[in-house]
Amino acid sequence: MTLEQLSANKCFEGEQRVYRHRSDTLKCDMTFGVFLPPAALEGKPCPVLFFLSGLTCTHENFIQKSGFQQHAARHNLIVVNPDTSPRGVEIAGQDDAYDFGSGAGFYVDAKEEPWSKHYKMYSYVTQELVDVVNANLPVVPGKRGIFGHSMGGHGALICALKNPGLYQSVSAFAPIANPTECPWGKKAFAGYLGSNPDDWALWDATHLVSQYESTPQELFIDQGAADNFLAGKQLLPENLLAAADGNDHIQTIFKQREGYDHSYFYIATFVAEHIAYHAALLTASA
Amino acid sequence: MTLEQLSANKCFEGEQRVYRHRSDTLKCDMTFGVFLPPAALEGKPCPVLFFLSGLTCTHENFIQKSGFQQHAARHNLIVVNPDTSPRGVEIAGQDDAYDFGSGAGFYVDAKEEPWSKHYKMYSYVTQELVDVVNANLPVVPGKRGIFGHSMGGHGALICALKNPGLYQSVSAFAPIANPTECPWGKKAFAGYLGSNPDDWALWDATHLVSQYESTPQELFIDQGAADNFLAGKQLLPENLLAAADGNDHIQTIFKQREGYDHSYFYIATFVAEHIAYHAALLTASA
Repeated sequence: MTLEQLSANKCFEGEQRVYRHRSDTLKCDMTFGVFLPPAALEGKPCPVLFFLSGLTCTHENFIQKSGFQQHAARHNLIVVNPDTSPRGVEIAGQDDAYDFGSGAGFYVDAKEEPWSKHYKMYSYVTQELVDVVNANLPVVPGKRGIFGHSMGGHGALICALKNPGLYQSVSAFAPIANPTECPWGKKAFAGYLGSNPDDWALWDATHLVSQYESTPQELFIDQGAADNFLAGKQLLPENLLAAADGNDHIQTIFKQREGYDHSYFYIATFVAEHIAYHAALLTASA
Repeated sequence: MTLEQLSANKCFEGEQRVYRHRSDTLKCDMTFGVFLPPAALEGKPCPVLFFLSGLTCTHENFIQKSGFQQHAARHNLIVVNPDTSPRGVEIAGQDDAYDFGSGAGFYVDAKEEPWSKHYKMYSYVTQELVDVVNANLPVVPGKRGIFGHSMGGHGALICALKNPGLYQSVSAFAPIANPTECPWGKKAFAGYLGSNPDDWALWDATHLVSQYESTPQELFIDQGAADNFLAGKQLLPENLLAAADGNDHIQTIFKQREGYDHSYFYIATFVAEHIAYHAALLTASA
């Protein structure tokens, strides 16, 4: 498990790095970002917060556009953000659309050929990447959060809901909250998972919330009120909130932001609040 | 003088917009960014701060990567950032190199054919764009600052030094401080200005500082100590500082940042300090 450091830039007294490694899970080389806050650069263990990006993104978008580093530096959180799909693999049709294949892994484990050989972003994020981080970065054991945007906001939700206890804090910007009921999700799940609706439910945050029976979990859901994908019924946070209302094991914090859209300008505006939320949960005494 | 609004995104309770207009000076269509802080959105006049970008940039880099909006919102500054060269014009060789032609206008008025027809970025920034801003945005008359990065840091310096009183505040991140003495500057000035060294001196901040005899001017110069272009003798801030030392009409603030490079991660880290500096000067009572 060798990490190749591709870049390192000092930023807010911490360091923004980019690494490449060979993923056994995805059977390809993968790139991911790591922000080390000042305390981590001095070797002090820090909690780690994973960010999952949305459709079309690589590791670069969040690093360059969100401005998260200043807040991670202040709260002494390590932030790790992977790519959104396997890369450099050869699958016919993988580059035909922005919302399926490359850049659109949806953080599920594909069952359908030909995607099932490489498209295992769920296992990559929840297992291999966690192991890589634990082995290579000065992390506090058991202090791990996850958040994301749009497709990645949903990814964060399902990674947490399917693994009670793995993450101690969870939030999402404008998540695709009920993919089995929206055009983006239906296309992706049909392609990666096949035609059986029972298989789809296992990867849908709204379904998982309705059936969740484990350790109580709080979910912080953020949504721009002027988001055109909200209006276009791609996001459906109301379905997830309704499911959570019926389940005592799930608490939700829902913040709607008047006038904000789906862009990184929206994320940049509220990432301080999300990171403070994660920091409060991850740095609390056990 | 019609402005076409290309985009608008709510950001930190203000609005990041992008406009396109026909430039009479450059004889082409030009795109620029405008951030309106909350007060300006309510129609209250605000000071305006211009940002000039470096080589290879368009208007987009600063808007997306610097995170300046949160600080401009807090201080109620309008921020306007133009492109770095004429665009959409037809000049043989304009796209052959990253450091000359497209994306590399150097904020001078070219004398040499074929560049002189379009490459008048100095007049565009100091006259036409100022007029466009005054006519279309709720600016406070006579409260105007300018800053920039690298080529644009130098651009900010010469725009101010050649127009005493036009700008009430000036700062630069890692400026190409003495272009007549560095490879980037020699190439650009030979191409745009020809072979007469007297013509070059008129556009070199270090020469202008040494000869400046007008209203006292303070210049805030910022430099990353680990900037590879500093090591490569492209920036030469020491020459500008030495020239300022010999001129009572110029005061300098020089901040060197240990470990920081030439990237937007460096700008993002210190843009808060620059905007606070401009705000203090631009919102002071006359």
